[in-house]
Amino acid sequence: MKRSGVNLVSVGIFAWARLEVADNRFDFGWLDQVLDQLHEGGIRVCLANATASPPPWLTAANPDMLPVRADGVRLSHGSRQEYCPTSPVYRDRAIALTEKIALRYGEHPALAAWHVNNEYGCHVSRCYCDRCAAVFRDWLRARYDLDGLNRAWGTDFWSQHYSAWEQVLPPRVTPTYQNPGQVLDFARFCSDALLDLFCAERDVLKDVTPDMPVTTNFMVGWTFKALNYWHWAAEVDFVANDHYTRAADPERHVELALSADLVRGLSRGEPWLLMEHSTSAVNWQPRNFAKLGGELRRNSFSHLAHGADGTLFFQWRQSAAGAERFHSAMLPHAGEDTKVFREVTQVGEEYQRLAELVGSTVDARVALVYDFESAWAAEQPAHPTSDFDYYGTVLGVYRALWRAGVTVDVVPPSGDLAGYRLVVVPSLYQVTDHEAAWLEDYVRAGGHAVLTWFSGVADENSHVRLGGYPGAFRELLGLRVEEFFPLPAGDNVTLTGGLAASNWSELLHTNGCEVVSSYVDGPLPGVPAVTRNEFGDGVAWYLATTLSPDSAVAVFADVLAGAGVTPVAPAPAGVEVVRRRGERISWLVAINHTDTDVVLPVEGVELISGVDTSGGLPVPAGGVAVVREV
Amino acid sequence: MKRSGVNLVSVGIFAWARLEVADNRFDFGWLDQVLDQLHEGGIRVCLANATASPPPWLTAANPDMLPVRADGVRLSHGSRQEYCPTSPVYRDRAIALTEKIALRYGEHPALAAWHVNNEYGCHVSRCYCDRCAAVFRDWLRARYDLDGLNRAWGTDFWSQHYSAWEQVLPPRVTPTYQNPGQVLDFARFCSDALLDLFCAERDVLKDVTPDMPVTTNFMVGWTFKALNYWHWAAEVDFVANDHYTRAADPERHVELALSADLVRGLSRGEPWLLMEHSTSAVNWQPRNFAKLGGELRRNSFSHLAHGADGTLFFQWRQSAAGAERFHSAMLPHAGEDTKVFREVTQVGEEYQRLAELVGSTVDARVALVYDFESAWAAEQPAHPTSDFDYYGTVLGVYRALWRAGVTVDVVPPSGDLAGYRLVVVPSLYQVTDHEAAWLEDYVRAGGHAVLTWFSGVADENSHVRLGGYPGAFRELLGLRVEEFFPLPAGDNVTLTGGLAASNWSELLHTNGCEVVSSYVDGPLPGVPAVTRNEFGDGVAWYLATTLSPDSAVAVFADVLAGAGVTPVAPAPAGVEVVRRRGERISWLVAINHTDTDVVLPVEGVELISGVDTSGGLPVPAGGVAVVREV
Amino acid sequence: MKRSGVNLVSVGIFAWARLEVADNRFDFGWLDQVLDQLHEGGIRVCLANATASPPPWLTAANPDMLPVRADGVRLSHGSRQEYCPTSPVYRDRAIALTEKIALRYGEHPALAAWHVNNEYGCHVSRCYCDRCAAVFRDWLRARYDLDGLNRAWGTDFWSQHYSAWEQVLPPRVTPTYQNPGQVLDFARFCSDALLDLFCAERDVLKDVTPDMPVTTNFMVGWTFKALNYWHWAAEVDFVANDHYTRAADPERHVELALSADLVRGLSRGEPWLLMEHSTSAVNWQPRNFAKLGGELRRNSFSHLAHGADGTLFFQWRQSAAGAERFHSAMLPHAGEDTKVFREVTQVGEEYQRLAELVGSTVDARVALVYDFESAWAAEQPAHPTSDFDYYGTVLGVYRALWRAGVTVDVVPPSGDLAGYRLVVVPSLYQVTDHEAAWLEDYVRAGGHAVLTWFSGVADENSHVRLGGYPGAFRELLGLRVEEFFPLPAGDNVTLTGGLAASNWSELLHTNGCEVVSSYVDGPLPGVPAVTRNEFGDGVAWYLATTLSPDSAVAVFADVLAGAGVTPVAPAPAGVEVVRRRGERISWLVAINHTDTDVVLPVEGVELISGVDTSGGLPVPAGGVAVVREV
Repeated sequence: MKRSGVNLVSVGIFAWARLEVADNRFDFGWLDQVLDQLHEGGIRVCLANATASPPPWLTAANPDMLPVRADGVRLSHGSRQEYCPTSPVYRDRAIALTEKIALRYGEHPALAAWHVNNEYGCHVSRCYCDRCAAVFRDWLRARYDLDGLNRAWGTDFWSQHYSAWEQVLPPRVTPTYQNPGQVLDFARFCSDALLDLFCAERDVLKDVTPDMPVTTNFMVGWTFKALNYWHWAAEVDFVANDHYTRAADPERHVELALSADLVRGLSRGEPWLLMEHSTSAVNWQPRNFAKLGGELRRNSFSHLAHGADGTLFFQWRQSAAGAERFHSAMLPHAGEDTKVFREVTQVGEEYQRLAELVGSTVDARVALVYDFESAWAAEQPAHPTSDFDYYGTVLGVYRALWRAGVTVDVVPPSGDLAGYRLVVVPSLYQVTDHEAAWLEDYVRAGGHAVLTWFSGVADENSHVRLGGYPGAFRELLGLRVEEFFPLPAGDNVTLTGGLAASNWSELLHTNGCEVVSSYVDGPLPGVPAVTRNEFGDGVAWYLATTLSPDSAVAVFADVLAGAGVTPVAPAPAGVEVVRRRGERISWLVAINHTDTDVVLPVEGVELISGVDTSGGLPVPAGGVAVVREV
Repeated sequence: MKRSGVNLVSVGIFAWARLEVADNRFDFGWLDQVLDQLHEGGIRVCLANATASPPPWLTAANPDMLPVRADGVRLSHGSRQEYCPTSPVYRDRAIALTEKIALRYGEHPALAAWHVNNEYGCHVSRCYCDRCAAVFRDWLRARYDLDGLNRAWGTDFWSQHYSAWEQVLPPRVTPTYQNPGQVLDFARFCSDALLDLFCAERDVLKDVTPDMPVTTNFMVGWTFKALNYWHWAAEVDFVANDHYTRAADPERHVELALSADLVRGLSRGEPWLLMEHSTSAVNWQPRNFAKLGGELRRNSFSHLAHGADGTLFFQWRQSAAGAERFHSAMLPHAGEDTKVFREVTQVGEEYQRLAELVGSTVDARVALVYDFESAWAAEQPAHPTSDFDYYGTVLGVYRALWRAGVTVDVVPPSGDLAGYRLVVVPSLYQVTDHEAAWLEDYVRAGGHAVLTWFSGVADENSHVRLGGYPGAFRELLGLRVEEFFPLPAGDNVTLTGGLAASNWSELLHTNGCEVVSSYVDGPLPGVPAVTRNEFGDGVAWYLATTLSPDSAVAVFADVLAGAGVTPVAPAPAGVEVVRRRGERISWLVAINHTDTDVVLPVEGVELISGVDTSGGLPVPAGGVAVVREV
Repeated sequence: MKRSGVNLVSVGIFAWARLEVADNRFDFGWLDQVLDQLHEGGIRVCLANATASPPPWLTAANPDMLPVRADGVRLSHGSRQEYCPTSPVYRDRAIALTEKIALRYGEHPALAAWHVNNEYGCHVSRCYCDRCAAVFRDWLRARYDLDGLNRAWGTDFWSQHYSAWEQVLPPRVTPTYQNPGQVLDFARFCSDALLDLFCAERDVLKDVTPDMPVTTNFMVGWTFKALNYWHWAAEVDFVANDHYTRAADPERHVELALSADLVRGLSRGEPWLLMEHSTSAVNWQPRNFAKLGGELRRNSFSHLAHGADGTLFFQWRQSAAGAERFHSAMLPHAGEDTKVFREVTQVGEEYQRLAELVGSTVDARVALVYDFESAWAAEQPAHPTSDFDYYGTVLGVYRALWRAGVTVDVVPPSGDLAGYRLVVVPSLYQVTDHEAAWLEDYVRAGGHAVLTWFSGVADENSHVRLGGYPGAFRELLGLRVEEFFPLPAGDNVTLTGGLAASNWSELLHTNGCEVVSSYVDGPLPGVPAVTRNEFGDGVAWYLATTLSPDSAVAVFADVLAGAGVTPVAPAPAGVEVVRRRGERISWLVAINHTDTDVVLPVEGVELISGVDTSGGLPVPAGGVAVVREV
């Protein structure tokens, strides 16, 4: 570890069965030794409270702590995360263990932070057992009276009216489509139930060590959507994330950037910690392609560019046994004489020259609105198209901004928009009246906004806003949509102005807005597809279809020009540049995702090489650079 | 509703939970008001007995009324149709509610008919609970003694011999393929069990209001096959159907026509009621394409052309909440200023000029044999090809007749063939000896018949008829097939005479028949594929393969010429013309499915425009016309 | 049967329900008659003990003998093989029936052998019930103490440490990936549990008729992998197999040859019995293509060529009822006047002229290592690619040898390699240290070996061998692999020397070996893909990728030349020639899989025609020949 420049490790995440080896019988000796040894080596520790997976002796003695699927099947142990979020046995024992660990290691000199549990909800985000049903009812009663519940869920439909609380259940397997309100509230409840568990574990740690920062590792990115991290982020001392790229995606670095910006948004702009990424292949995708030379380094620097103050890898040593033995590690099966270990060591060395960036923030003039609840609501079945994917749709819009060289902050609905020249709102399916007004106020006061199709359709109960889509934003956009026209999968339609689109269209009528582009063919020739509306002192664009990547770049060029947003730095396609800013100083982090050497017209000192860049900053093919700006 | 010309509505289908708001506590006030208001507006009502979905208070108190899947999972409430067909609790309560409604509204002046339950079997056509097992045994005992059961099911195979009735079960999950006879009889039982429920509900209504017509909405078409509607049709006062087009099918209007003809067949030629179709997109297909302008009007007129005396839409008002909020309606989310509402209103106005058609029938000289049991039997697993789809195969043959401009009546096996010049028999997999003789008699007496591959293979127990396929029809067809040769998916084979085929072939030997076309390539070069046999005074054709659409048209041209069948009217490809006939008068309904204006050489008065057509009937692209013939 | 030359039949396999018609009530009359009649006709009988499927009266009275799925669902009767392997009720009753049958028919003159049960594990190879859990623990305790179990399974990972035996379970449904060691040991246990059942049934027969040979029908081939037949083969008196070709595979005869060679390997080179193959189509593939004329004959002769002394068909008469009524038979639905029956009769006649081959063995100088456990271990999830298929990978390598005209013996790891010039080791994922040494010893002593990618990765506990892949064979191969690089599905990479490959690549470093071919493109340009290492007096090749079929042929041409292996006989592509050898005499069996007549330069007497072949042996297109060599 010393050799590779490691200075922080996460320890003990799945250690419960080795710490509490049987009911109330503990063995901390080995962990004492690990921590002492790390401390001697000058390596700090993010210590887990070790509750991520209960030991077999506990689940065997208490089978009702195991989670239950929607079809009533109770899961078995022998894997990981085998607990029902509302199980009192699990919670009591987890809290007892946490207290024990806090008391034992709270004063350990290696301790840098507490790492609570692990990737909450990764495999079991929802349990349908009778106890969860009861807790779900309690959760609902705190929000609704029974009449309110019936109204919110629209239970007049399909004879679902509840006349007593005990009739209300989680959405278990049913003959056909389930109540959308019930499904949405159960998603909210499940996120909250796990958050409640996190808080309980955190509070024990805070009781014992009030000044030690506490976090848990989020899973912000393309793989996971079960938790509303806006709520979670408010409960951690600092935000930590685990991120893995999708190996089959040639532009996986763009998804990485979105993920990192979203994490920074959760962190309200503050620096955050990448708790896990991989040095090479993972083991859970259909084909687990290894990272090519330079890719792990670019990945680490991308997270750093987007605001991470530290980037850890899962895992240190590739194990010989267990379900993740084919997941890459810093120290591979093949040992130190490997491309992976050499590259890890290189990054470790380089990071030592970048210490001055710690604590700095990231510059952005564009905000993107991200809403976990819209994903839950808009991805329900029995919608206009079953192909809708919220994160993928957001990524499509984000990609246009990434290609434009523009850095993006991510904000929640109703987030603070002060200082942003442009706010981008992709498929924000459901909004409250308050949130709709928030966006109107922003534009009215001179802001620029881009909304995309399937936005503003529903209210917070997932009730469709009547009178024409996008119900919440008709005035802001100066238009009215009478009907959605999803397009056949794979079909492309042509738009005026040389644009192309696919996936979705809308029967749209202008009501004051200007038509930027209309369909030339497809089911709606002549109907507007891209519009622009002056509203108050600002401008609101609407993209009523999924523009092709190139068309999105073209439209956003106009949007950005109108909003006065320029790229961070002039850079060729595929070269990413992000600015981190300190109190009196700023840095550019440049990452060359192409296979061509480039030179950027940037002035300052490149920190890794120590070279002055006044003649231009060379960034080799696949390489990175960090410049302290003049 | 008045504005859009509505004169009949179906009310209360899923209202149980709002009518019986708790155990034996009723609230009819709102429904009183709805009916009174409709009556005041001159709109009549098809009133539901509201049993389609039991309320949560009932299922919560009686979980054993919930249906059970083949794997033993009991379904939950929170959706619709959550009842086991044999549950006495459900039945008793449904009957009590029905009686209450019949007594309350039986004399209401708005009442036009009773609408019983809803789309029986749509989601839960089969329940595998222990009670259903017992009722299934009773059903079997009414048909077989135990020896008879063992013979019918062929239980000597795989050690399945039953030595006592209590050993007999529904086909729950098993290690591998199930007993085909058991699967077939369970399908029959499940259809009968629901029919028994319908009859019990109907009888209550008949007891209270003996003269009020009673119906329930069938689901005849491409989506559903769980009920034997030949049996059901005998129990309703008039036949009603729900039909939805398959949005991804460019020829979905042909499937609509088959469905409508099949409904008219169930109605024994009498006019019927389209209880539901959609004004635009539905919400349950993978991508729910909206209907293009003119399509809903063509759909309505197509049903009318094929014998419907009324065409209702599901649903009046698009709801803001509930699982069907993205299903189109007459009054969309966007309100009255919409393509949909305008087109609905147009149809409403036009229908008022067509009142003279009410009660008329449809002219056809060709009969098509349709058999729900052959679908159950022939689509079982462990057959020559797992791709077989009975309805799709019927549709393939029907399409050739539709393209020929020929109207088709649909009849059951052993139906009345008097007056038909041609009977078409697609893949009638299983037939009784009686049914086989019925077809022979028809041809012997001078009729023409076309049978297609996989017909006459089995008897009513699904036992294969030995001695060569198609066992029941070898003599009629003058040939013997020794082996089936399904073709690889996607492979095409060439036939003599410029024909092409795919999907299926047979090692066929003539035994008196004439060879019309033989394979040129594929696994059976030189083997006959299309044959023609003079039998008695008639002719029997055999299509031993799936002809390409164009080849089917070509072969049917010869078949129709030989049978002396001509099109309803001369019309270009894609223009559908059907004749409805009254006592002394007839009408042509023309529907132009193309994007080209056409003029038909038809004489009479076009009823929508009131114009004399002696100079030819113009039918604009995508339009319709109705002519009272001179 | 007489007419078609049948002289051995298998009887009574699924007869339990007709023999024991109710609890302890027997009816043997019909079977007496069948056996007597067969005996009178001179036909011998392989008599089943009839335990393959328990009768419904037994399962109905003892539901806990039914198997349980991983999700806890207990299967139902009404199919076949409905028993849990560890059920004492099933076992007791099966043994009682076996004894009854042994006593009744053990002296019957028609009896040739006992046929125990049927296709063990075909549908239910694994049961997850609580009783199986307990027996699994017993099985584990015989191999490990608890510490040993924890070490073998690597339970430190994911908090899976077991502190008491009763916590150990089968791998039921879990939140995510299961413990690989648990999965592997459960596979071993399930094979052993069924083998234990076989032995119990066999022992009863041996007790009653010690001299009568006992067998059961294996399912060696592409469809099945649940049993470790190396262990099973040691327990039968002679090896019998069921084999069905994959109709959609144009080279299905190559897979047949591999299967037959593997069966002969299980039989340790001794002649074996093909208990089942099909005369034409089966009924369980997606589309069940019929065999073309000549194909059943070629199939039968191929099995004979590869060492079968008899080839039976499933089934004699195609049944009218039951789940296999569309499975072909010797006597089809269509009767005797059929291509199938004629061809069966032809084979029957021809076999009578080949009696001299009985008891002869097969010549081979190449050994192929096959390991059922490597399939279980290497096909687990969470590996580098989810597309890995052990049998398919073996078949890919085997195909190259088949095309080279070389006959192959199949051996287990650590099998006897004496006399082989070359040993081929495809993807032998896990090996013991002993097995690794065995292969090194062979090469050191002058043998030639070819190992392919993903070999030697793990030890017998599926623990990855550290220090670089292929851990067990780094020295033998003179190389070190630091990382696996699976390739995108469908992607091809180019290698030097005109070779092409796909599916897999490795970041490989030579360590003494010679580079035969390297990647030109793909993720690893310049990296060695095919290597050759002189080791001791022998040579070890490594194929680090999946070569295209033609490239594999090219590389094996060099390998075979180096090892001094030549084809059995000079023959054009697609003509298979295998030599069977008697004590002082040998025969060539030639099978022409092409549609071209060929003449082979072979000298001897063709046994079917009785013709001298000194002028060359004609083998017509699609035909076969058997030559007694001069």
